[in-house]
Amino acid sequence: MSKGLPKRSENYSEWYNELVKRAGLAENSAVRGCMVIKPYGFAIWEKMQRALDDMFKATGHQNAYFPLFVPRSFLEKEEEHAEGFAKECAVVTHYRLKADPSGKGLIVDPDSKLEEELIIRPTSEAVIWNAYKNWIQSWRDLPILINQWANVVRWEMRTRIFLRTAEFLWQEGHTAHATEQEAVAETEQMLGVYADFAEKWMAMPVIQGVKTPSERFAGAVETYCIEALMQDGKALQAGTSHFLGQNFARSFDVKFVNKENQLEFAWATSWGVSTRLMGALIMAHSDDNGLVLPPKLAPIQVVIIPIYKTEEDLAKISERIDPVMAELKSLGISVKYDDDDKQRSGWKFAEYELKGVPVRLAVGMRDLENRTIEVARRDTLTKESRPIDGVVEHIRTLLDEIQVAIYDRALQFRNANIFPVDTWDEFKEQIEKGGFISAHWDGTEETEAKIKEETKATIRCIPLNSIEEAGKCVYSGAESAKRVIFARAY
Amino acid sequence: MSKGLPKRSENYSEWYNELVKRAGLAENSAVRGCMVIKPYGFAIWEKMQRALDDMFKATGHQNAYFPLFVPRSFLEKEEEHAEGFAKECAVVTHYRLKADPSGKGLIVDPDSKLEEELIIRPTSEAVIWNAYKNWIQSWRDLPILINQWANVVRWEMRTRIFLRTAEFLWQEGHTAHATEQEAVAETEQMLGVYADFAEKWMAMPVIQGVKTPSERFAGAVETYCIEALMQDGKALQAGTSHFLGQNFARSFDVKFVNKENQLEFAWATSWGVSTRLMGALIMAHSDDNGLVLPPKLAPIQVVIIPIYKTEEDLAKISERIDPVMAELKSLGISVKYDDDDKQRSGWKFAEYELKGVPVRLAVGMRDLENRTIEVARRDTLTKESRPIDGVVEHIRTLLDEIQVAIYDRALQFRNANIFPVDTWDEFKEQIEKGGFISAHWDGTEETEAKIKEETKATIRCIPLNSIEEAGKCVYSGAESAKRVIFARAY
Repeated sequence: MSKGLPKRSENYSEWYNELVKRAGLAENSAVRGCMVIKPYGFAIWEKMQRALDDMFKATGHQNAYFPLFVPRSFLEKEEEHAEGFAKECAVVTHYRLKADPSGKGLIVDPDSKLEEELIIRPTSEAVIWNAYKNWIQSWRDLPILINQWANVVRWEMRTRIFLRTAEFLWQEGHTAHATEQEAVAETEQMLGVYADFAEKWMAMPVIQGVKTPSERFAGAVETYCIEALMQDGKALQAGTSHFLGQNFARSFDVKFVNKENQLEFAWATSWGVSTRLMGALIMAHSDDNGLVLPPKLAPIQVVIIPIYKTEEDLAKISERIDPVMAELKSLGISVKYDDDDKQRSGWKFAEYELKGVPVRLAVGMRDLENRTIEVARRDTLTKESRPIDGVVEHIRTLLDEIQVAIYDRALQFRNANIFPVDTWDEFKEQIEKGGFISAHWDGTEETEAKIKEETKATIRCIPLNSIEEAGKCVYSGAESAKRVIFARAY
Repeated sequence: MSKGLPKRSENYSEWYNELVKRAGLAENSAVRGCMVIKPYGFAIWEKMQRALDDMFKATGHQNAYFPLFVPRSFLEKEEEHAEGFAKECAVVTHYRLKADPSGKGLIVDPDSKLEEELIIRPTSEAVIWNAYKNWIQSWRDLPILINQWANVVRWEMRTRIFLRTAEFLWQEGHTAHATEQEAVAETEQMLGVYADFAEKWMAMPVIQGVKTPSERFAGAVETYCIEALMQDGKALQAGTSHFLGQNFARSFDVKFVNKENQLEFAWATSWGVSTRLMGALIMAHSDDNGLVLPPKLAPIQVVIIPIYKTEEDLAKISERIDPVMAELKSLGISVKYDDDDKQRSGWKFAEYELKGVPVRLAVGMRDLENRTIEVARRDTLTKESRPIDGVVEHIRTLLDEIQVAIYDRALQFRNANIFPVDTWDEFKEQIEKGGFISAHWDGTEETEAKIKEETKATIRCIPLNSIEEAGKCVYSGAESAKRVIFARAY
């Protein structure tokens, strides 16, 4: 009962689009490149937010909120930053509409032109460092450890729901420090938080690494990232953490008196993950029947479906189920009892499969007699009949098991799809099949660009844990000291 | 120790501005009319959000997210709505900047002009009803009960931090129903939720009522509101809930097949509260020493300050305090132990007074000997020495007491400032002194406008619980069936 989803093996891209739509996660809006996140999708995002927010606060960060608008002159201040974002940004030029004098409708009132245009934030370094200027005078004011949950806009030409949209939701951490060492430690700490979240909550293994200079965030000294592998063999950058050095402090003139009583520019980091993680979550685990959600992020962890013919039967089943529901809820497990009589149980089974509910319980009249209940797992599509006594304890354990099993499956897949490659022919052959390619690179931007041009593969990252190993660049044959990870990417 | 705050009695407006700044709640940004909400202010807003969100979910609503941009043609569709918002909106006309060919810096790329301008949402009825069109076919699809947490922009000419800003944060509920009756019930239910939140969380009494036609939300059939009274005698609209009839369904052609198998337009409501509530919270309770926060919304409910001279003394105090801290935390009470040695305790006392921390505990060396602790209340500025044994239980009760006491004080103030007025002379005299004026009104827009012109007073609402009582309009002398509430307002 796949509700007619396209198969992954036949058309992965169509499968993804249809799944997002049919599972009620999101849809494209009438506004170009902008999406509507529907309640079921948003409930998953809320769970992600809550978990991340707790992790940010546990590492000493506080939330705040900065303006949506970046004055043009602010964006200009950090040159690389400006260059990186100016080409695709929404520009506010006027502040009023008026009735069209030549007919019906509204037109922009030319008298309302702004003296300086405002850019909808594509990211908030400029606005935030302009504010930090007034917050930072002394080393005593540091560190500043702030995070913001916000919407941002990047006028992407080719958009893809969740993965690349003109407007998206994200969090952006922006910290200021008294020393370079502290700022680097913060950058690395937050990368670790993202990796932890990806692995423990999303059940998605990631490679931690640093970007090559050409793939760095505009304005960063170093960009750290986590890279995940999707089921179609393409890579997805799931989060980034940037060490910004003193670039923004210099552009916005943020100086402080250090412990040695000398004026110094503050050291900065920024780090973010976005609703793109929704796309990653979907593509990492789901199958031809629909979503597969790790229990920790599932809005409904357990669904219970009564199988009955008469109202009387339903009443009997409900009576049996009531204490199970209550017990599950008391353990903090989110459970839904679907006794809606407008749909058949077969339809419901398919629907909750599509929606990725990790555990499905079903109870019919025979179960009442036998004091049993059917327990089905979404991840393995297996089911078994169990005594209803003790089933709550079983489910509690089962949810943990499923969380681990989904991660293990993704890890196995990922590990089976990292290919050490040593020749250019091998490289070209492997890249067509997908996966991460671990290969030597000569460290030049030129080689990186040529490989991209010829194969559409990019260097996803230089892994943090990569071993020093003398070798020859897979493209140029020049000397190389370590392998890097290549892939085609979302 | 007021840290030099202006006095309310001397300059209420300055007092407010300075308090917002010095307590670290928010500041004006470099972007005209937009504010930066600082961590302490945002922590209060987060507590408000959490409480409201729980109440929305408890009444069956789900969160979702809709685009930031409203195409101009969408805004046009509902005529009154368009008229209400077109005059003050941020308009995106281009999607790219480019290097200024005549020198340094960036200019708008004229080649990136949008075919249709996009308005930054001032509210989302238009965008949401355009989406609902595809979601609603049958009565089975109804009701739709959705809320969104978002930023909105209204290009206000005169802004005031939290109270009236160009960009603000809010939640907007948008529901669709099969019958008029259901939609009206929803509108009233959400007004009740807002009143509950204002009274039980913010400790701020409100009058529930409906707006006169001239004060209605642009596009609404009926606007319900909650109105609070600030300490300077001015009214503040703290939340609105709109019955939109079939206006938006008609404009966006949202029809459904009803139970009688006939096509019908859907019935709508929308309701919202914003960061304006932060302004209301501050002005409702605070005093010349700083913020007074109701414990339920205080980011720090209890602060503990050790009074010591040597490191050794501090260690002894900390040892005594540790179990108190642990016990408070285990009860879910947020507590901060401030043993920072860079500030004197006198400075700390003033600082936490300024920040409105409801309960302050202080422990010195004599307290150690006597097994006592000093307990100070922010709302009454009283303090007493108590045995440290049992102090946690005392604080738990005390926090509840303070919550009630703050509400009672605000209620007393509010009730003492509702003035039944029956003559125009009395009206003109009273309005200068402030407060709510309860007076008869002839029901005409003309009289309402003249009263506003002559006194700057508006009809805040027609209270829901107002008693039928024959009388004469305070301005025109014409017949009137009930009193309405007038005031000058924020």
